[in-house]
Amino acid sequence: MKSVGLIVEYNPFHNGHKYHAQKAREKTNADVVIAVMSGNFLQRGEPAIIDKWQRANAALLNGVDLVIELPVEFAVQSADYFAQGSIYFLQKLGIDTLVFGTDIISEKAIDYEAFGCQVIVKQKEIDKYFQQSKKKDQGFSTQMTAVYRHFFPEMPLDFTSPNHLLGLAYARENAKYQTPMKIIAISRIGSNFHEENLAKKFASATAIRQNLLAGKKEKIKNFVPDATFTSLQNLVCWEDYFSLLKYRVLSAKTSELSQIYQMNEGFEYRLQEKIKKVKNFADLVNQLKTKRYTYARIRRLLTYVLLNIQKEEKIEKSEIPFRILGFTDQGRAFLKEKKDTVSLISKVGHLQSNMKTVIKADAIYQMATNKIPEQNYGRIPIYNSQNCE
Amino acid sequence: MKSVGLIVEYNPFHNGHKYHAQKAREKTNADVVIAVMSGNFLQRGEPAIIDKWQRANAALLNGVDLVIELPVEFAVQSADYFAQGSIYFLQKLGIDTLVFGTDIISEKAIDYEAFGCQVIVKQKEIDKYFQQSKKKDQGFSTQMTAVYRHFFPEMPLDFTSPNHLLGLAYARENAKYQTPMKIIAISRIGSNFHEENLAKKFASATAIRQNLLAGKKEKIKNFVPDATFTSLQNLVCWEDYFSLLKYRVLSAKTSELSQIYQMNEGFEYRLQEKIKKVKNFADLVNQLKTKRYTYARIRRLLTYVLLNIQKEEKIEKSEIPFRILGFTDQGRAFLKEKKDTVSLISKVGHLQSNMKTVIKADAIYQMATNKIPEQNYGRIPIYNSQNCE
Repeated sequence: MKSVGLIVEYNPFHNGHKYHAQKAREKTNADVVIAVMSGNFLQRGEPAIIDKWQRANAALLNGVDLVIELPVEFAVQSADYFAQGSIYFLQKLGIDTLVFGTDIISEKAIDYEAFGCQVIVKQKEIDKYFQQSKKKDQGFSTQMTAVYRHFFPEMPLDFTSPNHLLGLAYARENAKYQTPMKIIAISRIGSNFHEENLAKKFASATAIRQNLLAGKKEKIKNFVPDATFTSLQNLVCWEDYFSLLKYRVLSAKTSELSQIYQMNEGFEYRLQEKIKKVKNFADLVNQLKTKRYTYARIRRLLTYVLLNIQKEEKIEKSEIPFRILGFTDQGRAFLKEKKDTVSLISKVGHLQSNMKTVIKADAIYQMATNKIPEQNYGRIPIYNSQNCE
Repeated sequence: MKSVGLIVEYNPFHNGHKYHAQKAREKTNADVVIAVMSGNFLQRGEPAIIDKWQRANAALLNGVDLVIELPVEFAVQSADYFAQGSIYFLQKLGIDTLVFGTDIISEKAIDYEAFGCQVIVKQKEIDKYFQQSKKKDQGFSTQMTAVYRHFFPEMPLDFTSPNHLLGLAYARENAKYQTPMKIIAISRIGSNFHEENLAKKFASATAIRQNLLAGKKEKIKNFVPDATFTSLQNLVCWEDYFSLLKYRVLSAKTSELSQIYQMNEGFEYRLQEKIKKVKNFADLVNQLKTKRYTYARIRRLLTYVLLNIQKEEKIEKSEIPFRILGFTDQGRAFLKEKKDTVSLISKVGHLQSNMKTVIKADAIYQMATNKIPEQNYGRIPIYNSQNCE
């Protein structure tokens, strides 16, 4: 079967995502559309507004044939590591083409495959230049931007766009494999990632979330499929976990916080000091902001604290669980083809050691309200015979 | 100055406590009544229904001259260790007489001083007998009861009463010092510890709490002084911390829970298993109950988990902070006399290393509602010039 892979968060699944899945299928003439989707905690360090099952369900009713969960250890990560996990899934499944959205106007402006290869070839030089040009007060992504601009002056690199950064990371990661996937970038239409008004036909996930969290659910009705609209009952946001986070930070010894993944440079001391003085999560993030720490990096770090993800917990790609959240008939047929190459998890048992961190994270995710159902034990993949509403 | 010492929790301070303080003063003809009082977490493993300052204030307006805080490491303990901490305070302050309430009808039935001495003399024999008669399924206090009955058959030991058990522990601990305090036991009048109706003039703290938590505040008006009645605004109970406790248990690794003070025998595994299945704190305690674990022991253990008090955190008596919660004129005069022998803390600074655990515990205590004021930093002792309302 001819396959196309997407790397997604669907927070929540909206018309733009539906368009993206359709286009991906059309452009590649694929038989099956496979999405690797973050679970209940997301790349930019925040909980998903609705749970992974509801998001997968909307996708399966709107053009996606198979949804696989990107586990929290890879999902809540900066672009490079996020790409490592998601590309690994697609490579392991032998996907032919990777399609992703880009904010660059002309679709042909960047040859991502060539870029990926070049980075691999020049890796040593790039690393050396990176070390030499390092500045104390700059965050990692600002520094990498300068490095790439130096090595690829002809490319229209727009590092203010998170999607573009992710695209480059996918390209680089993909080029490391023996048989890289073909890469196609599709322009995001009608709405830029950061755009916050809902005037047009398509709206960004950011704009949709902001309206939802402001209680203006009716405003987004025309921008999401029915499956999403009806599932928007118990919305989750960071503020729901603020008291748990505060409790954790106040009750932990500083030495315990030092064990948290990516906690360093004395950030644990600042965190314990600042959290006493703020009333909510938004204030906390603002208080912690410095030049070196982007908002996303701070939120990711706070997610690791909330979930008690420790330095030693980093998992290797080879241990990643292939957790199936759902499939259509086409998706099922594809899985059948792969059953000898990949060991898939369709039901979580109590001894699933490679899913420990996901299970822990989801148990905490559920604490936002008492209306979120069990996320793992006993849950079987969603099966939608038709992938349209 | 002639002094009398009390060991108390005042949860909350009621007419019986007022009577007890008056009687203690009368019987000993003391110039000053000193109370060592548990802070915000109590001997039986529960949060205080109102904070330590409000309880100290009511005491200072009703017959007590000086309130010193028994820190959480000693307060949330079984009788023996609770007695170690509280007797140490009174001994260090050179108190002449210890007065405590007893549930035994005749005040003269037990010679506590003699009992204390005898236990010290026979300690080796007692320990040996204890080891020999040990039964796997019995809790510590049941076993100790059998041991004491064996060695002191003539004494009317009633081990079903927590107050009586504490009295014996005080007597034993007191006898270890070079100059033991004189001991006077006063019968608790009008109400037994476990009694739960409010029909009489005096009511037990248990009955008062039950009415308060059931929303029947008016019912207790005649059983508490005004200072207590007016302070009963933001009531605190274990259920207020259940979600924090659940979060802690679910997010911690089992190996982290193993580090909690007094956590052993695989209790951490049972705890992680049971907490998934219960809806509230009361259910959890019931699910964890076994023959070996009394309710109080379970609640204490869960308090250590909530407060993240670890095995290594046990403090020595010599490091105990002498934290003054409040005084009257008489109390102040007494403190002046002692200023060369004891280093008193009247204001907590940010580097108070021997109060770390108290500060941590109180920060968590405050999380029950957002209406509990800061408990430590910057708080100065209450001063009531008159010790009557």
